[in-house]
Amino acid sequence: MRRFFTLLTLLCAITISASAQNMKWVNATELGIHGYTKKSDKSPYYRFDYTPYEWNNKTIVSHAKKCTGLYLVFKTNSSQISATWENRPGRMGDNMTGIVQKGLDLYIKENGKWIYAGVGRVSTLPEQSKRTKTLVKNMAEGEKEFLLYLPIWCEFYNLEIGVDSNATIEGLPSPFRHKVIVHGSSITHGASASRAGLTYTALLSRNLGIDFVNFGFSGECKMQPQFLDFLTKCECDAFLFDAFSNPNAQEIGERLVGFVEGLVKAHPGKPLIFLQSPILETLDTKKYERLSSRIELSRKMMKELSKKYKDVYYLEVENVTGENGLIDGSHPTDLGFHRFVEAYQPKIAKILKKYGIK
Amino acid sequence: MRRFFTLLTLLCAITISASAQNMKWVNATELGIHGYTKKSDKSPYYRFDYTPYEWNNKTIVSHAKKCTGLYLVFKTNSSQISATWENRPGRMGDNMTGIVQKGLDLYIKENGKWIYAGVGRVSTLPEQSKRTKTLVKNMAEGEKEFLLYLPIWCEFYNLEIGVDSNATIEGLPSPFRHKVIVHGSSITHGASASRAGLTYTALLSRNLGIDFVNFGFSGECKMQPQFLDFLTKCECDAFLFDAFSNPNAQEIGERLVGFVEGLVKAHPGKPLIFLQSPILETLDTKKYERLSSRIELSRKMMKELSKKYKDVYYLEVENVTGENGLIDGSHPTDLGFHRFVEAYQPKIAKILKKYGIK
Repeated sequence: MRRFFTLLTLLCAITISASAQNMKWVNATELGIHGYTKKSDKSPYYRFDYTPYEWNNKTIVSHAKKCTGLYLVFKTNSSQISATWENRPGRMGDNMTGIVQKGLDLYIKENGKWIYAGVGRVSTLPEQSKRTKTLVKNMAEGEKEFLLYLPIWCEFYNLEIGVDSNATIEGLPSPFRHKVIVHGSSITHGASASRAGLTYTALLSRNLGIDFVNFGFSGECKMQPQFLDFLTKCECDAFLFDAFSNPNAQEIGERLVGFVEGLVKAHPGKPLIFLQSPILETLDTKKYERLSSRIELSRKMMKELSKKYKDVYYLEVENVTGENGLIDGSHPTDLGFHRFVEAYQPKIAKILKKYGIK
Repeated sequence: MRRFFTLLTLLCAITISASAQNMKWVNATELGIHGYTKKSDKSPYYRFDYTPYEWNNKTIVSHAKKCTGLYLVFKTNSSQISATWENRPGRMGDNMTGIVQKGLDLYIKENGKWIYAGVGRVSTLPEQSKRTKTLVKNMAEGEKEFLLYLPIWCEFYNLEIGVDSNATIEGLPSPFRHKVIVHGSSITHGASASRAGLTYTALLSRNLGIDFVNFGFSGECKMQPQFLDFLTKCECDAFLFDAFSNPNAQEIGERLVGFVEGLVKAHPGKPLIFLQSPILETLDTKKYERLSSRIELSRKMMKELSKKYKDVYYLEVENVTGENGLIDGSHPTDLGFHRFVEAYQPKIAKILKKYGIK
């Protein structure tokens, strides 16, 4: 009997240590990170090199340092995928899940389609800013391809991927063709999808096989000269804009024409697609008036600009996120984004196709 | 000029204090709280009087103390609705928003329909467990009816509703007819709707005008004898069960027949509707096997029981939450719940109608 317990204790000890020891860890940078608007020298987890510009705006710099829109693609024959990751601790928005803000979102390729595989969970209250988690385990044998989205609302410090110690793992190029820069407000940034792979940019990328690069700056997408300068210089095949949610009517009036003309001049022959983005779900009569005037003005101006410039497009879908499609009157949930993509995707795809972006 | 600044300072001071002073505060208990399974003497914010039972299970007691499913209904001619509320501080799940866990969710009646009006925001990191927030302001004149949902994932200490100091406010009876007890897992409890009014029980109530009372116990709905005892004694018109997500196959095998027979005997002539609830979105072969065997067994047993007892119903919709309808492989998002309600609501309504519950 005593021998039996000794054996049992030994077996337990082996099993427990096995979960840690029988793993091989690879740094995300070795596998290759995709989805940058412009890679920064400062950190492989910054989505945008903000340094050439004088911002005088802490929020923009903080958003530039976030890993929003970044993703890894790799193949492995491991039976499990784990991850160790660390982010800057602090602030958590109440209109999004912890998973979308600081967690990971994994997809597997099945019959040519990216299917949900697992999430990397995070602890929020009490907060834990570094953790090791299993995203999926006990998978069937064979080599599989994975797509892993980094979270949308934090500054990232490090990411390592863990697989079975005897497994192979290899980084792959992005499966998405071309490069469409999507510049916009918190809606583009991803608020309030439940996971990073359910933002509208990520959905469009997986649905169409085209790389829609997330260049959303929550609350700060106002056609500022710095953004215009960057966008005129950046390498890409097309632009998609959610440009009317953040600026007020005065800013739209003052900046829109110059913004569009600057881009048309810098990127001749490339499509510039503008979406009508502010959403009118409010009982606040003053807010309604403010939003309405903004929508009216941008609609009027965009109709003129899209007549004047053949590569400038203006898309509008009434009540696009539908009943109960927003969490807080402004930000789409997964339901809102699902309807948003259902409505806009065919229109966007049709325009891009005319330019060979398909 | 100096006089002008003195006047300006005075005006600012008046304006600032006005926002606090020009309000009238009414305690939620004075307006009347609805949605209890069984009201507790211990707190008006406990949804269930758990005390007659010996639970030996801290999670169940903690869930019983939550304000999940509770709501207020009131009419007012105020131009704004504010709230001060306090909850037990601590723990926040990463698969839900802060708003659904600790915030408020307000609806207004428009043309006989409940429409989103505003949310009560919460601070999560850093945490704040007591706060005063404006849910909606600058509304058009006139008397309006409101429905306010309390959050689904916290113990509540107090709630006061603030309106214009010269406004009237009056509690109203529940607008929902009958009483259908919905007993189930975290899915019934509400994980992971984005706001309290978007759980499937709340959606069914507003859509059908019937009171679907939330008796979800995340992780703990296992047909325990205490739950059976309570349900046999409780006053209601019908039952809806999401009973197969939490128990394992052995528990289902041992408890299901007794559970159904106990309820049939205690509530003759009342419909008992069972939904097939575990969701098979996993690459984990062991988990898949475990879930499959549970689904197979409960399906087989429910088909027999629904043949044997005329008031026992079994409903099943394959892949009910659809592609990307779950946040974490288990819990529906607003998109998943939307599809869940679209699929199940007509079937549930049809059964209830046969019993005059409509």
